[in-house]
This record gives sequence, structure tokens and C-alpha cells, in this order.
Amino acid sequence: MCPSDDLKPAVPDVLASRYASVAMVRLWSPEGRIRLERELWIAIMREQAALGVDIPPRAIAAYEAVADQVHLDSIDRRERALRHDVKARIEEFCALAGYETIHLGMTSRDLTDNVEQLQVRRSMELLRDKAVAALCALAAAAAQHRETMIVARTHHVPAQPTTLGRRFAMFGEELHHGFLRLEALLESYPLRGLKGAVGTRLDQLSLLGNDPLAAERLEREIARRLGFAQVLDNPGQVYPRSLDFEVVSVLYQLGAALSDFAKTMRLMTGHELLSEGFGQGQVGSSAMPHKMNARNCERINGFQTLLAGYLEMTARLAGDQWNEGDVSCSVVRRVALPSAMFTLDGALETFLTILREMDIYESAIATEVRRALPFLATTTLLMEAVRRGGGRETLHSVIRDHAVAVARGLRDGSLADNDLARRLGDDPAFPMSKAQIDAVFADPGRFLGAAPRQVDAFLNAVEAVRKRHPAAADYTPAAII
Amino acid sequence: MCPSDDLKPAVPDVLASRYASVAMVRLWSPEGRIRLERELWIAIMREQAALGVDIPPRAIAAYEAVADQVHLDSIDRRERALRHDVKARIEEFCALAGYETIHLGMTSRDLTDNVEQLQVRRSMELLRDKAVAALCALAAAAAQHRETMIVARTHHVPAQPTTLGRRFAMFGEELHHGFLRLEALLESYPLRGLKGAVGTRLDQLSLLGNDPLAAERLEREIARRLGFAQVLDNPGQVYPRSLDFEVVSVLYQLGAALSDFAKTMRLMTGHELLSEGFGQGQVGSSAMPHKMNARNCERINGFQTLLAGYLEMTARLAGDQWNEGDVSCSVVRRVALPSAMFTLDGALETFLTILREMDIYESAIATEVRRALPFLATTTLLMEAVRRGGGRETLHSVIRDHAVAVARGLRDGSLADNDLARRLGDDPAFPMSKAQIDAVFADPGRFLGAAPRQVDAFLNAVEAVRKRHPAAADYTPAAII
Amino acid sequence: MCPSDDLKPAVPDVLASRYASVAMVRLWSPEGRIRLERELWIAIMREQAALGVDIPPRAIAAYEAVADQVHLDSIDRRERALRHDVKARIEEFCALAGYETIHLGMTSRDLTDNVEQLQVRRSMELLRDKAVAALCALAAAAAQHRETMIVARTHHVPAQPTTLGRRFAMFGEELHHGFLRLEALLESYPLRGLKGAVGTRLDQLSLLGNDPLAAERLEREIARRLGFAQVLDNPGQVYPRSLDFEVVSVLYQLGAALSDFAKTMRLMTGHELLSEGFGQGQVGSSAMPHKMNARNCERINGFQTLLAGYLEMTARLAGDQWNEGDVSCSVVRRVALPSAMFTLDGALETFLTILREMDIYESAIATEVRRALPFLATTTLLMEAVRRGGGRETLHSVIRDHAVAVARGLRDGSLADNDLARRLGDDPAFPMSKAQIDAVFADPGRFLGAAPRQVDAFLNAVEAVRKRHPAAADYTPAAII
Amino acid sequence: MCPSDDLKPAVPDVLASRYASVAMVRLWSPEGRIRLERELWIAIMREQAALGVDIPPRAIAAYEAVADQVHLDSIDRRERALRHDVKARIEEFCALAGYETIHLGMTSRDLTDNVEQLQVRRSMELLRDKAVAALCALAAAAAQHRETMIVARTHHVPAQPTTLGRRFAMFGEELHHGFLRLEALLESYPLRGLKGAVGTRLDQLSLLGNDPLAAERLEREIARRLGFAQVLDNPGQVYPRSLDFEVVSVLYQLGAALSDFAKTMRLMTGHELLSEGFGQGQVGSSAMPHKMNARNCERINGFQTLLAGYLEMTARLAGDQWNEGDVSCSVVRRVALPSAMFTLDGALETFLTILREMDIYESAIATEVRRALPFLATTTLLMEAVRRGGGRETLHSVIRDHAVAVARGLRDGSLADNDLARRLGDDPAFPMSKAQIDAVFADPGRFLGAAPRQVDAFLNAVEAVRKRHPAAADYTPAAII
Repeated sequence: MCPSDDLKPAVPDVLASRYASVAMVRLWSPEGRIRLERELWIAIMREQAALGVDIPPRAIAAYEAVADQVHLDSIDRRERALRHDVKARIEEFCALAGYETIHLGMTSRDLTDNVEQLQVRRSMELLRDKAVAALCALAAAAAQHRETMIVARTHHVPAQPTTLGRRFAMFGEELHHGFLRLEALLESYPLRGLKGAVGTRLDQLSLLGNDPLAAERLEREIARRLGFAQVLDNPGQVYPRSLDFEVVSVLYQLGAALSDFAKTMRLMTGHELLSEGFGQGQVGSSAMPHKMNARNCERINGFQTLLAGYLEMTARLAGDQWNEGDVSCSVVRRVALPSAMFTLDGALETFLTILREMDIYESAIATEVRRALPFLATTTLLMEAVRRGGGRETLHSVIRDHAVAVARGLRDGSLADNDLARRLGDDPAFPMSKAQIDAVFADPGRFLGAAPRQVDAFLNAVEAVRKRHPAAADYTPAAII
Repeated sequence: MCPSDDLKPAVPDVLASRYASVAMVRLWSPEGRIRLERELWIAIMREQAALGVDIPPRAIAAYEAVADQVHLDSIDRRERALRHDVKARIEEFCALAGYETIHLGMTSRDLTDNVEQLQVRRSMELLRDKAVAALCALAAAAAQHRETMIVARTHHVPAQPTTLGRRFAMFGEELHHGFLRLEALLESYPLRGLKGAVGTRLDQLSLLGNDPLAAERLEREIARRLGFAQVLDNPGQVYPRSLDFEVVSVLYQLGAALSDFAKTMRLMTGHELLSEGFGQGQVGSSAMPHKMNARNCERINGFQTLLAGYLEMTARLAGDQWNEGDVSCSVVRRVALPSAMFTLDGALETFLTILREMDIYESAIATEVRRALPFLATTTLLMEAVRRGGGRETLHSVIRDHAVAVARGLRDGSLADNDLARRLGDDPAFPMSKAQIDAVFADPGRFLGAAPRQVDAFLNAVEAVRKRHPAAADYTPAAII
Repeated sequence: MCPSDDLKPAVPDVLASRYASVAMVRLWSPEGRIRLERELWIAIMREQAALGVDIPPRAIAAYEAVADQVHLDSIDRRERALRHDVKARIEEFCALAGYETIHLGMTSRDLTDNVEQLQVRRSMELLRDKAVAALCALAAAAAQHRETMIVARTHHVPAQPTTLGRRFAMFGEELHHGFLRLEALLESYPLRGLKGAVGTRLDQLSLLGNDPLAAERLEREIARRLGFAQVLDNPGQVYPRSLDFEVVSVLYQLGAALSDFAKTMRLMTGHELLSEGFGQGQVGSSAMPHKMNARNCERINGFQTLLAGYLEMTARLAGDQWNEGDVSCSVVRRVALPSAMFTLDGALETFLTILREMDIYESAIATEVRRALPFLATTTLLMEAVRRGGGRETLHSVIRDHAVAVARGLRDGSLADNDLARRLGDDPAFPMSKAQIDAVFADPGRFLGAAPRQVDAFLNAVEAVRKRHPAAADYTPAAII
Repeated sequence: MCPSDDLKPAVPDVLASRYASVAMVRLWSPEGRIRLERELWIAIMREQAALGVDIPPRAIAAYEAVADQVHLDSIDRRERALRHDVKARIEEFCALAGYETIHLGMTSRDLTDNVEQLQVRRSMELLRDKAVAALCALAAAAAQHRETMIVARTHHVPAQPTTLGRRFAMFGEELHHGFLRLEALLESYPLRGLKGAVGTRLDQLSLLGNDPLAAERLEREIARRLGFAQVLDNPGQVYPRSLDFEVVSVLYQLGAALSDFAKTMRLMTGHELLSEGFGQGQVGSSAMPHKMNARNCERINGFQTLLAGYLEMTARLAGDQWNEGDVSCSVVRRVALPSAMFTLDGALETFLTILREMDIYESAIATEVRRALPFLATTTLLMEAVRRGGGRETLHSVIRDHAVAVARGLRDGSLADNDLARRLGDDPAFPMSKAQIDAVFADPGRFLGAAPRQVDAFLNAVEAVRKRHPAAADYTPAAII
């Protein structure tokens, strides 16, 4: 700490204080980190003792008894005196416990790299659970609107009908795909382990009487205790930083589904088909009380931009290792890892809130469908007309001419309603009467294709997720700032 | 095509023409793409016929007979006339075959998105195989130098000994980890399928008599034919672009391992411990004939920077879908997807070449070890001295004072050799004689920790890969420009 | 070239062949580059001769006479024989001229770095001129719609009125700001010059009799000839790669204004307020003839994503120089520099086309204004009501309650028209009659604030640009694919 | 604030608490921001009063008297009650002053966008001054080592001699170039001004009796008061976010020069030519006391990676404006703007510390020169030999053969010293005797080219900077953690 620190105003971490959940913030707070360090030290002691290192059970018990006593000020004082952060934390823990049996045969990185992986892993578990809740909430919305017909848009222009539930399922499938990647990563994410200064396990081997099997077992058991299924064999001083990139890239992929959802919600808000609701104290928008701004959706898009920045940071670390490693990654990881976790956590919280609070204006949706349907149905009309025996190319050009004329009329104000059906019915070149055309329109469900069935496929996928993680499904987000 | 095109000089794609392999370039060349399109059309026809659509077997046979007749000029002429690229290619294929039974119930995206996924998939298979070869080549180098002692560096400064094979295994493990992700992605990568204009399968359903099971079966069988294990249920007009991001992020992760290797090779070249060899016509460096530049390693680092750019491009597409999709991603994917494939392909080719041609200067390596060993051994000396009964802190400061003095002497020229052992032996405060210290140094293997065993772990992992992909292991790279 | 090259299909550069203009492509084509190299060599010879190096005027004349004879095949053959690209091009040029007086005292980088800077500079000049045309075209559109009232949106929701010309001016001002950066960069962009292998001018000094003033003059004069106002003093083997980043960051900033414009155009297309027009053969969208897709605007957004990738590539090169330089940047710059130029060139071409072809639906715009105006006018009504003597807070809540009720009614279909004026007129708590309220609405110009004057400020700024670059203002874009 | 906030541990902003200077942190701290807001409000009141708005001088005086009384808790309580952050801060300030004459005719963005620009501008001024100090410190080092001959490296391999001062000047020129961009940006950076909800100045015009000249004057004078030379004419609700990108891209360019310097320092540390010194309590590296790690240089490289992430964030905001703007950029700017400032601030602090503390090992440098010189001199020997009348190509191949043999011998241990001079002297095919060759080596200054003069050019450039900013030159960095 610099001498001038007393003059420096405190600046809280924006993401932690405003957007991330309490559980996530705890993992990355100064206290939280120290708790995890102590959890790691204790796990190591237990295994070292089991492998014959001279650590008495009462020492371990003494450390365990004080593990929750985190005094940041005291640690800070020690660090100023020692000018070494890890030593300060060792001394503090030992002083509390009255023993000196932690950190045996360990270098600083044996502590820090493994603790940071523990933070990463626990954060991913939190996010995994919250993604379960997000999938379930989205599935509920998709189920509710399984058959609510809406105008699907491509190029942001009406294209064909679909259902609102099907649109939700579209984003839901993307989220589910990202979710499976996160599950897979939790399986394959490997712990660095106690590899010493350059990765060769030199010091643990010395401690364990140069028994290579004991050193390997030590790592395996610690990993198991901490929840890791894999351990690296060949890292240097540090684990490969492409692992950090992998983690953030999975977060980014999950965030992409939320961001796609949010962008389309913003577009629909612009067409007044739905809104985020007034829940969030929109009272405040004093000048323009009618406005129902999609602020939370905008925020989700902002979160994705933040994730892009953290992705960039970790991407740069990947492929930039010099020899067995150095600390050019240190300040980067210190920022990027917690921030990326806070960001996706905040995005999932916000997403859950949107799903709880959104208002859907079915009447406005129906109005839009009515206006666009004649256009959207042209493909179907063409098929019907061909079946009645017209030349495909000729009929296509008949339809196109009328459709373009109607579209222009609606835009230039010369037409109030979409009368394409009437025009085609009146045109002798088109082999269907107005009545026949109206009959086609009378069954709008026929334009939906497989949309409702596709929703079901999404619901089934989410049901399987819920079964794998039953406790996570019903998480309720905290209130949003 | 613009009218002024005749005046426009041809500019070949840099990555395709200079760095990527023939097999990869074929997949993405104009001809190659048309071949894949036809493969897709034929697969679809076969399944549609099997499901009762009226497509005679002889029509399919006719298409198959001409599938290899790719006349770009003719297609180009059609495109200029029709002003529609997909139509031009449909007409050309139909004209060649003498039938009009392709593309039934399909929109343009049913063709293009699926073909691009086919290009992506086949490219990943090529890269997977080349990564197998890279792993095997690196394993061979690691095996050869399993016990070649070198100075491991952290902060680019000598830290502890390791072996050269262990250093290779470090990069190898990272490459292997990325490789496993690529294998997993090939399993999970889902085909968009024939979903029509907004994703609801409307047109295929019409074609198949509104039988939803038939429409689902159609997609499943086509996917199977083309090698895909999964099909999306709920895409819009396009598959979620986060899939493109996922693909490129896996490529980036693989490239990171190559890039880490290359960077350390460049550092070692600067210490004259090895070189890329003179194989690559370094004769050219006319002004400075002694120079053995690590140009290929530099190129690999350059490739990783390119991949970062393509990662950025696909990252932006992810999370930016509007409604059911549009073509704001089109020009991006047209550039980023083939370029990313060409880049990693070129990087793997270059990596294989480096491994074949590199010269390792064992004598220089041994000299470096000799000079640094007294420093590197201080941890071990400290332990031995403590065992002989000294206070840990006291002894540490004795060692540190001598070590710093020697380090300064070597730097300021007052010392020619590292005489730390002699100094400690002479110092009465240190409880070991020069002879005892020399005895420690006489067995340098003791400083290597588990390094050789760790190499074996890497060799075993590669052996498992080789068994899964026996044909890919012995690929020989093409000559490098 | 690899032996298998004959089997490798040609893959044209996508950006050059499809999007960039002929003038831009020429600068970066293989022939174009050779022309620039020869221009540089001749400029150097002229100055060396002027400074006393023994180069006869007839030699220079001989080189000049053949400078346009570019035979790529011949150069290729030489390169295969020599295995050195620069040597091959030297030999070719010398063989054509019958002299050997080029490249005196030069290393390869003295050629390549300077030629690439010449390509960069000339490209920026092209883009500068095209940006002038873009500003002028946008100014014309802004002038035309200086008073066309539209609904301004924040959060994509109606907020207050503005004019369409004012909206164009908003994007125009951003473009103008980027344009000024490009002009400034053209002033400050420094040439590397003839600095030799590590930057110390060793070889030119030898050639010029160790006269440092002569060596400095040589560079200054060459720079002047080629159009550069500045020369670096202290580069290494290469100029600092942060210069490449600076160039692409300026391109990116220019592209951002185009991209902002395009995104809002896409949003307006979704509200059917305007379209790109049918000019571009939209006939092709066979299935859905009514669709007026903003494909060119989407493409501009795609171009910006590409620029982001090239920005990333050059950003990575900046800050990654090792000692006096190496070629880890080579493959990156080979891709990123021309591609970035092609991309912004294509974006400007596309932008000019959109401005020429777009259709604006004034009737639809007026309809939207009519529907939203009561909401947009609430701020003004509040002020008028307060002036008539009501409590600000009370009146605000009166307005808000009615406004929210109307907004809900419009969304849920219970209201057909926005009757906020009537409701307020009827409410005794609001101190204005319906007639008084209607009087406020009768003068919609009062809601426009300074919008028309602000348009004029933009027009004036563009007029100054046009005066600085009169020839560039009326550029017509080539037809778009 | 969420109800659960009491449970949330405080997480300080990493960059603010560990790396940025007190002055910078103050600008972005919660208190600092409120101070700037109040400064802005007061400036606006003064100008509004001058233009006739009814604001009594004693009101302004009352606000000024309490402007420094920042009670975050009180503001927080108000925000919880009002659910609106800007309103809370208005009420607090008014309650303190006992008046209600701030924020007249303003929307929230009129406050926030302008205050953030003020933070940006003041931060850039701080960085500008610190960059002056960095340039001066680097110039001092360059001057000191103007003639200290070192081995210049390309491809990280010895190439030709240069001087250490010249190497510093190389990075210095890059820093100076970036510095000029920052100076230029401070000139051109425009204030958004009081444009109201959609940019049309509607509310200020109402306040000022619809006098457009008054509204323009208001903005101009406020800008002048706050130090801005430019005001935007045509922004929407927000200023174009490409301005944020421009700011961060200039920071990134400055950081690139520091990063280049740091990377080469790390390489030189690996060759033991210099170190960061033991100043920074390296005592701590307990296990390996001899290590002199370039931790600060590594940190500077880490800072550049962070800047890349913030660049990415702001790059995404540029070109993503929807209509007149929204808050999808809000959370991004909240993170990226202060973080980018903190990061470059920390990097400059670190850089200044490195320059103060670094140790240069001239003896080791001389040893390296001695070993490499025969290689580095081959170009000169070739010229001398040609002058004595040998065929250039023949002599080149003679030199090359010997050089390669020596290089191999040094690497394989068969040679202890570089005896290239002796070999050439002995070779009858080479027309110079050993004595003649030694004579060439005896004057090593001849190999330095213009290096010392080039250093002078850098010193002159810095001298001009110092004259423009005399007070900034001698800044002393705070102690580093």
C-alpha cells in the first residue's frame, strides 16, 4: 500500500456493488478469498498428514477452528511489515491457530493459482445454477405463449408467422446449448495442483520422501476434496492461461443468448408489443411519463459488451506464456476473472427479473398479425393457386405486383388497410376467389408450421435440465437497482 | 458484379494462397463450395424421395452424375442475368442434370446456412487430424528430451531446473486440452436443418403433407448422412451465431498452445539454445549470414493474432440477432469463417515444420545449466543445511547474501564463474563444506523433481489420441513459403 | 510456393473482389504493389544521385521507362529460383532496365515498410475523398428533410419530436468528426525512411560518405516526393506498429458513424418509415415479394464488425515489439491493412448507394407523429399548465396518470386513437381546456426546438469540407453486388 | 440498492485501490463525481443568470458555499426514498444551499453526459502531464546512454550494434507520437452541452424565451468555463460513443509505447543486461534470492492487456447507437471509462518507477557486444573487402560460410570464442589480413551509424514538450505496491 493511501477515496467495484449477487460477491471479496485459501490449506494439510507428513491432528483442528476469523486489518498490518502478501496471510492464520503447519512445501503460486481456480469453479457452479433457473423461467414463458401467433421478422421486416413461445424457445435453445457447454466445462476443468516453482513438484517430492506416487496422490485427493475431477500433469509455474480464456468464452456464449433475447425484446418494445413493465419504478422518468423503456434489456446488452472486454483480456493471456510463466497476467486476471463472473451473474439476475415483470400486449400483437398476414400468407396462397392449376412463375408475378402495390399504398398513406386478399380475389389472372382466399386466412394455425411442436422440444430439453438440478430451478432474483 | 470489374485486378486471398493446405483451401474455394451444395441437395432429395416426395430415382442419379461438373463461368453468367446467386446455381445444376427436383421446399438459407455448417464441420475434421499429428510430433520431441536438463525460467529469469522434454510436455498438455475440446465440439455441433424462412419448417411441412414426424425425420437423416450427430430444434432463419463464436473460440484455444510454444522457442533462440534450423532457405538473409531467425515461430504468433481478429468478428455476431435473423452477419462470416480455418491450418502446418527442422544445441543448454545451477539449487541446499541443524531463517539469509553477491558479480564482470558453492563452503555460518555442496550438485537429477514422469503422463495421453485417430498421426506438412 | 500449389484452387480475396472499389484494389493488388515499389526505388535513386551517389541519369530514365511493365509470372519464376521475394523483384526490375542501381544501401525492410506506408497513405487519401462525398450526400439529405418532423426515440421509444434532417445531421456530425481525424492523420503520419537493419542508417551513411546531414536530407526529400510531411527519427527495423493501430482506429471511428446511421435506418425500416428502395433487384426475394429489406444497411453494420476484427489485429501488434523488431507482425499486417482499407471503402460505397436509392415514406412518418404527439407534448403542456398557475408536482401526476392510461389503452386495444388531449381537457384538475390544448398541438414546429438551426450548423461544416476538397464532393459510387 | 446489500461484502475497485494515483482516483470516486456535478450546475446557473433567467446571485453564492459538503450517506437515503439517483443529488444540493435554482431546463443526461465528459477531460489532462514526466525521464536515460554500445536484435537475435540510449529513444519516439495525439485530442474533444431529451435544446430554449442565440451562447460559455474548446451541434440524447472510443484508443496508443519498452526490458533482463533493481522489496522472493524479476515491466504489459479490454468495450459502443440513444452503453461506460484512466495512470506511475530504479549492467552489455561484434560487423567487412577489389557475391559467400561455422561452433560448444576475424584473416579467398580486420573492429563507433544523433533528435523533441508543460516534467511517482 502506498503511503498516500489514506488520502485516496474508496472506490467500490461497480459490478460487485451494483449488479452481482451476494453469493457471487462473497466468493471474490477479500474475506471470501481468505476463506477459500484457508479451505485449501486445510485440505492440503489433511492429505499431507495422511501421507505421513508430520502434522498432528490437533494442529489441523486448531486451524479449522479459526478458519472463519478473518481480520483484514490485521493481515494488512502484517503485509506492510513483511512486504509480502502471501507471507502475511500465512502468519495471520498461524498466529490464530497457534501452529505452523500450513503451506508446507508450497510456493506462493501453489496457493494463489489453486485458490483462484477454486473461485472460478465455485463461480461457475453458481452461474450454472442460475442458468438452470433462467432456462426454467424462459420455458415457462414459452409454454404460456406456445400458440400466441406473432409476426416473425427477418431483416426486421415481417416475414412469416410464428408464435411468441417459439421465439422464446429460439433464444432458449441457444441458452441451453451454452448451458451444456458450462456443464461440460465443470467436468473437464482441471486443477493446477501443487507443482512448485516451475511445475516439477520438486518441493512436495522432498516433503514426501521423494515418493512420486505419494505426490500424485496428494494432488488427486486435494482436487477431489475441492470438487475437481481433473488435475493437470504438466503445468509450469502457472496453469495455461488458455483455461481462463475457455472459462470466459463459455460465459460469453451463455451471455450471447441473453443478449439476443434482450435485443429482440427492445425491438418489440419499439413496436409496443410488450414492455418490461412498470415494476422498476419507471415513475422516475418524470419528463415523459408514458415511456416504458426496456432499460433492463439494454443493460443485458451492456453486460455482453463488458463480457466482450473480459474475453479480450483473457484471450490475450492465452498464447502469451514465456517459458514456465510470469506475472504479466496477474493484474489482468485480478480484474477480468471476478468481473466476468459478476457480469454474467448480473445478466442472469436481470434476465430473471425481466421474465418476472414483463407485460405482453396480446391485443397489439394481434393487430400487427392482422395487418401483416396477407403478406405473410403469400407463399401459402401461391401453393394453393398452383394446385388449382396456374403457372408458378405467372402466379408469382401476379402476387408480387399486388403485394408491392399494397405495401406502397400502406406506406404512402393511400391505403388504410391491407386489402391484398380483395385485390387477388378480384384479379382474373389469379385462380382463387376472395372467399377461397379468406378461407385460407381463416385458419391461421396453418401458417405456424411446426412452431408449437418446436416449443415442446425446448420444454423437454429444459425438463431434463431441471431433473439434473432440481434445487436450482426456482431461484428468485434479488431486486434490481 | 459491378460493371467496372473487368478493370479490377485479381487479388488472391492471402491466407489461402500462402499458408493453408490444399485440402483446406478446397473446402472453401468457389468450386469446393458448389460441390458441397450439390452434396447437400442430393442428400435432401434422397430423403425427400424416401419420405414420398415425387422425385424419381433417375433424377437423383442424373444429378449425381454431373455433380462434379463445376463451371464457374457459366454460373457467373446466370447470376448476372438473374441477379440472384442461389437461383443461378440451382439453374446451372438443373440444366446439367436435365431435371428440376432440387431445392424443393427450401429457402436460400436452407441451402447456405447448412452448406456453411458443412464447410465448418469438414474443416474442423481436417484440423482435428492435423492436431493429432501435431500432438504426436510434440510427444516424440518430448520423449527424446525427456531427461535433457534445462534451466526453467520464471519471469524469464532462471528459477529451477526442468527438462526440455518436460517443457515440450507443458505446451503439449495445453494443446491436448484444446484438442479434447475440438473433439467434443465435433460431437455436439448441431446442424440447422431445413427450417424455412423463419425456422418453423413451414415449407417442408407443406411438401410432406403436413406430417411433422416426416419433417423431423427428414432433417435427422440428412444430418446423419452429412456426419452431424445433432440437429437444432428452434433456430430462426439462421442458426445462432454464438455457434460460430464457439467454433472459433475452440480454434483460438488450440492456437494458444502453439503460440505459447512458439514464444518460448523465440526466447530460447535468443539464448542460442536452439534454432529453427537453416532448412528454410535462410541463405536469403544476405546481410547477416550468421542469423538463425525464428521466423516460423514468429509466424505462429502472428497467426494467433489473426485468430484473435476472427474471434472478435464472430464474438460480435453472437448476441446480436434481431428477431429471426438478417444478413448483417453475412459479410462477416464470409470473411471470418474461412480465414479462421486457413489460419489455424497454416499454424499447424508451420508447427509441424518447426518440429521437423529445429536444431537443439545441447552443449549450449548444458553451459547454461552449469552457470545457473548453483542458484537453482539454493532451495535444496537450504533444506540440506536445515537438516544438518541450522536455523531456517538464518541460513536463508546467509544463502541470499552470497547469492546476491554472486549475481551482481556476474553481471558487473567482476566474477567470471558462478562460485556460490565455494563461498558457502567457506562461510562458517553455513553448515556444509564445499565437498558436501559439490556432492549435492553431482546428482543433478535430484533437481528435476517429477519432470520425467510428467513427460510420461503426456506421452500416455497422446498415445490414447493416436489410438483414436491412427491414420492422422503421421501427416507430413507441405513445404513452407 | 509449395510444390502442391498447382493443385490449390484459386480463392479470390472476398473484400477486394466483392466490395472494394477498383482504385482501392489497385493499390493493394500484386501489380499495384510492384508499381509502388518501383516508384519508391526511383525516388530514392533520384535523391541518392542528387547527393552524389554514382547513379547516371540514363539509368534512372531506363528504370522509369519500364516501371509499368509488371510481369508477375516472371517475378514468380525468379522468386522460386532465388527463394527470396525482394531479390526477385530487384532482379526483375534491373533486367528490364538494363541497370543495377536500385536498392543501394537498402535492406529489405527499407523497401517493404516504406512501400506499405505508401499503400496506407494512398488508401487513406482515397478514403478521405470518399468521406467527403459521403458528407456531401448526407448533407443534401439533411437539407432536404431539414423540417420533416419525425418522432425522436430514446430507448427505442417515442420521446420528443425532431426532424429527419436533424437525425441525419446527428450521424453527419459524427462522420465529420471522424473525417477531421483522418485529415489530421494524413498530416502527421510519418514515413519510416531508409534506416537500415536496426534503424541506425548505417548503410545509407556508408553509401553517402558518412555524411549525416546527407542521410537526413535523403529521407526528407524522398518523403516529400511521396507526399509525407513527417519522417521518423528513431524507428528500429520497423516503424512502431502502434501507427498501424492508429490508422485502423481512425478508420473504425469513421465506420462507426456509418454504422450508427445504418442501425437507425434498419430500425426505421422496421417501422416502415423508409426503405432502401427496390433499386437493388429485390425482385429476387421470391418468396416474400412485399419485403423491402435493409440489406445494404445490414451490410454496413457487418463491415463495422470486420473493422473491429482488423482493429483487434493491429491493436495486438501495438505494444508487442521485441527489441528492434521481427516479423511476427508480418502475416498480420499482410491481412489486416488491405482488408481494413477494403472494408471501409466498401462501407463508404454502400453508404453512398443507400443515400442515392432510399425511399422516404412521408405519409407514414406523419402518421407516426400524429399518434405519438400527445405523449411527446406532455413536457410542453406541463409548462403551459404551470404558467396558468398549477402546482408543478400535482399537474405532473395528473398528466402522468392520463398518459399511462392512454398508453395502456393503445397497447391493449381498448383505445383506437391517442385521446390524451381530450382527457386532459375534460379533467377539472388540469387548468387547460381541450381547445387550449389543441392550440398547442396546432403549431408542431414549437416542439422542434433548435433542430432546423442545428441542421444548418452541419451544412456549414460540410460546406467547409467541400471547399477544402472540391473535386471529391461529387463522387458516384459503383453499382453494388 | 437491493435489500440484501447489507449482507454484501465490500469489494474495492482493484485498479483504483492498488494502481491509480490519488489525483486520478479522486476524479472518479463517488465524492469526486458529486463535486464535478456541482461545479457543472454552478457554471450553468451563472450563465443562465447572465442570460436573464431568474436566478439571484445569492442563490449561486449559497450553492458555491456548500459545494464541498458531500455526504454520501444522505444522498443514499434520498435515493432509496426517491428511486431516482439524479433527483436525490439535486435535492441534497438544494437542501444544503436552501435554494432550488439548479438543473433548470435540464434532463438527467444534460447532467450525466456532461459530467462524465468533464471527468474524461480532467483525466486526460492528468495523463498528459504524467506523460510529460515519462518523456522527460526517458529522455534523461537516453541522454545518459547516448553512446553505450549494445547489441541490437532483430528476430531477438543479434543484428547490428546500436546504443542503449538509441533503444530508449526508439520507445521514446513512439511515446512522443502518442503524446501528440493526446494533446490534439484535448484540443478537439467536444462537449455535448445542454441539448435536452433528444438533442434539440427544446427545454433550454423554453427557459431562454426561445432565443436560439442565447441557447447557443449558454453552451459555449459553459464549455469555456469548464475548459472545452468545442461544443457539439447535433448530438442526440447522448454524445456519439465513438468519442469514448477515440479517447481510449489514444490511451491505448500511449500505453503501447510503454508496453514495447517493458517487453524489451524483460528480454534484456533475461540476458542479465539490466534489472529493475532490488528496490521493490524483492527480498520477498524467498525461495530464489538471486532472482531479479522484471515484475514492474510485466505489470506494464498486463496494463496494456487491460487497456485492450477497455478499448474493446468502447469500440463496441461506437457504431451501436439506436435512434437518439439509450442506456445500453451505461453499465459499459461506468466500468470502461474510469478503468481505462486508472490503468494508463498506473502504467505511467509504474514506468516512472522503473526508470528511477533500474540497474544497468554495463559490463554484461560490453561482454555481449564483444561476443557478437564479429557477426555484427560482417556487413562492414564485406564493404571493405569489396573496396579492396573482390567480387561481391564471392566474398559474401566466403563470409557466410565462416560465419555459419563459427555460429555453429559457439552453439555446439566446440568453440569458446568468436574467432571469425582470425578465420577470415587466414582465408586466402578473403582480401583482408587479420590485422586489417582488427583495425575495423578497433573503432566500434563506426558501427553505430547515426544512433547518437538520432538520440539527440529525440531529446530535442522532448525539450519542446517540456517547454510547453514545464510544471509537469518533474513529477515523482508514488511508491508501488
